[in-house]
Amino acid sequence: MVDLIAKKRDGFEHSTEEIQFIVKGYTEGTIPDYQMSAWAMAVFWRGMTPRETADLTLAMATSGDQIDLSSINGIKVDKHSTGGVGDKTSLVVAPLVAAAGIPVAKMSGRGLGHSGGTLDKLESFAGYQVERSREQFLQQVREIGVAIIGQSGNLTPADKKLYALRDVTATVEAVPLIASSIMSKKIAAGADAIVLDVKVGKGAFMKTVEDAERLASAMVEIGRQVGRQTVAVLSDMNQPLGFAVGNALEVQEAVETLKGDGPKDLTELALTVGSQMLVLGGKETELDVARHKLEELIASGRAVDKLAEMVAAQGGDAQAVYDFSRFPQASLKYEITAVKAGYIAEINAENIGHASVLLGAGRLTKETKIDLAVGIVLQKKVGDFAEKGEVLATVYANQQKLLDTARPEVEAAFQISESPVQASPFIYKII
Amino acid sequence: MVDLIAKKRDGFEHSTEEIQFIVKGYTEGTIPDYQMSAWAMAVFWRGMTPRETADLTLAMATSGDQIDLSSINGIKVDKHSTGGVGDKTSLVVAPLVAAAGIPVAKMSGRGLGHSGGTLDKLESFAGYQVERSREQFLQQVREIGVAIIGQSGNLTPADKKLYALRDVTATVEAVPLIASSIMSKKIAAGADAIVLDVKVGKGAFMKTVEDAERLASAMVEIGRQVGRQTVAVLSDMNQPLGFAVGNALEVQEAVETLKGDGPKDLTELALTVGSQMLVLGGKETELDVARHKLEELIASGRAVDKLAEMVAAQGGDAQAVYDFSRFPQASLKYEITAVKAGYIAEINAENIGHASVLLGAGRLTKETKIDLAVGIVLQKKVGDFAEKGEVLATVYANQQKLLDTARPEVEAAFQISESPVQASPFIYKII
Repeated sequence: MVDLIAKKRDGFEHSTEEIQFIVKGYTEGTIPDYQMSAWAMAVFWRGMTPRETADLTLAMATSGDQIDLSSINGIKVDKHSTGGVGDKTSLVVAPLVAAAGIPVAKMSGRGLGHSGGTLDKLESFAGYQVERSREQFLQQVREIGVAIIGQSGNLTPADKKLYALRDVTATVEAVPLIASSIMSKKIAAGADAIVLDVKVGKGAFMKTVEDAERLASAMVEIGRQVGRQTVAVLSDMNQPLGFAVGNALEVQEAVETLKGDGPKDLTELALTVGSQMLVLGGKETELDVARHKLEELIASGRAVDKLAEMVAAQGGDAQAVYDFSRFPQASLKYEITAVKAGYIAEINAENIGHASVLLGAGRLTKETKIDLAVGIVLQKKVGDFAEKGEVLATVYANQQKLLDTARPEVEAAFQISESPVQASPFIYKII
Repeated sequence: MVDLIAKKRDGFEHSTEEIQFIVKGYTEGTIPDYQMSAWAMAVFWRGMTPRETADLTLAMATSGDQIDLSSINGIKVDKHSTGGVGDKTSLVVAPLVAAAGIPVAKMSGRGLGHSGGTLDKLESFAGYQVERSREQFLQQVREIGVAIIGQSGNLTPADKKLYALRDVTATVEAVPLIASSIMSKKIAAGADAIVLDVKVGKGAFMKTVEDAERLASAMVEIGRQVGRQTVAVLSDMNQPLGFAVGNALEVQEAVETLKGDGPKDLTELALTVGSQMLVLGGKETELDVARHKLEELIASGRAVDKLAEMVAAQGGDAQAVYDFSRFPQASLKYEITAVKAGYIAEINAENIGHASVLLGAGRLTKETKIDLAVGIVLQKKVGDFAEKGEVLATVYANQQKLLDTARPEVEAAFQISESPVQASPFIYKII
């Protein structure tokens, strides 16, 4: 291993066998953390060729259990987001493309920071079961075309171990390591094709379009090398996505979007990601035809019905899809108003995300129990005009103390300008 | 610590407090190996400023015990070699400059690889004691001006721990880390001023004059920053130093050099290093005057008498200085002869060093017991002419099996050329 660290340190390319040796040795514990972290820092410095990155991805993808989706007919297209504030896209896209015939067998997570993960959000439906046996999971997808469950089994242990190490050794930001981490999980989970939603902006891991492009290109190239067609959508995360941030609040917004009444940015993103999935899944050859089909599924109510079907299949209260009073409700409500008239110049996503954590909507450690009802609903988005005293956002809370702590953070998120402001585009680029 | 790794990774400079935090945390075990190795790799990549390197040196120098030499009058000048094959310079220089009035309170090591370290060599004098109490050590230097003992106490634990980690994480070669490692040990051992013998060539760690210059400059700069006047001599290690390689054999060559009958290269190096020490020690202001004084001490016999005095003070058989038959003798002797006539183009120091280990003169692990009598004595040096069948080197052994194993390695060290060959200079540069 010392020689392999030196090789990478000196800018040389690893062979496939060398990458496999490193991943296997690290997973099995014969390569210690202190050698792996030195190697990771050398990778941060020297980078990896596309071939090395693909080898690393495959070595990690096959380091533990792999999900066999072959009993499900059709091309299984997975979707992944690099994460952002108010990102409830999966809740919209999964039933939407399932309604169009793409089988969606999705394993999701709970997430740290911001609001909860997709699983937490789904638990806003009373009774929703995220734990299903492998056979129940596959059967549900075969029968109704869609299931979103928690990860079971020992998927990509190499990635888990390496990610934890990178987190404490300042080697998280290395593009080949991020790209292979994401792609290895999707491949282990059985994806035939992948649509990536790479977030860009102040509230995202990638702050600039250039950085996001680098990451997206690395992942698309991995997909090409390992035979999984991959498309990356670069979408905006300078302000929260949609209006709602917080678990049950986001679910309601996702439902509204599936009914055709969603926010423009979320609707646009869901249609963009969804139509890419339809094309990769072989259901359509033209993106605009695919998009039109999805719009029809929304208009006809079949998209939202598919969500209700999935919720019911997993033991959840599907009636909530048609009656929002069945979702957890917050007891306290506070309106943030504009201190002066003007155009909204900025809604800092990090502030909003942090405020939602303060309210109890997200967790900072794995042990935190989250409050599904609380969160923030924006009334304005960047570029909108607000009169002095007009409501900018509503804060939903269950404890006065938490509300008092979170309120200044929500207020601080808003910047108001006297001159008109142009919001960032919803979608920057498709790679 | 994650933030500090990221800071170095991104090319920023650490503050003094940050360096102290890192060294203290690592020594105490609150910073784990895997963070320290990532940091070391970041240092390998980004380097360190002279100020950072000096801070690291001082933090390591003060991480454990420090030797207080203040009870010895005068400027204590230490000498350090980066190591090479046949390097017995300390055995010549220590008594030589002591005879000139420079107090030499030297702690030395046993060394791995090649032949043994200075302590092993000194044990060729029957009865020589390398273990002395702190008070015995200081008193001997006060009385006779020179002592060479083994390290006692817990000196530079931070350096020991970091060095062991660097060795297994491909971060040995980082110049600021090498420089601070060497300098921290000298400072902890109480040196007021330091003369460094930086070896250059095929048998040295630094293969090129440029690399050796970089290391030498880094160490001289550390000395400047921490108030220890430091001079570096860049000397040749393309072939072994002198003729003898092996413990008792090297001691005899050192004694001959102190008597004025030594090899040219060793004599030149000893006079160069020694005269620098006289100037740094304030005994002379001009290098050529210092050199002349040392030559007189050799010619008058006072230099070799000082060695005998030191050996006697440490319980060793000082008579061996005047009667080489009192040194351990090898039972077997084999002469390597020239397979063709020609000029010696190369005597590969690594081959010779490895052969001496095979014979039992050096150790590969700390546990190996070494054979003081065995080794190799060259009869020719690079540039010399040899007739076909003329003796190139004599191999001294105590076991036929080891002799048979080492012999081909000694033969392989020699390259013979038909056209005249110019040897490398003894000294490249003084910094």
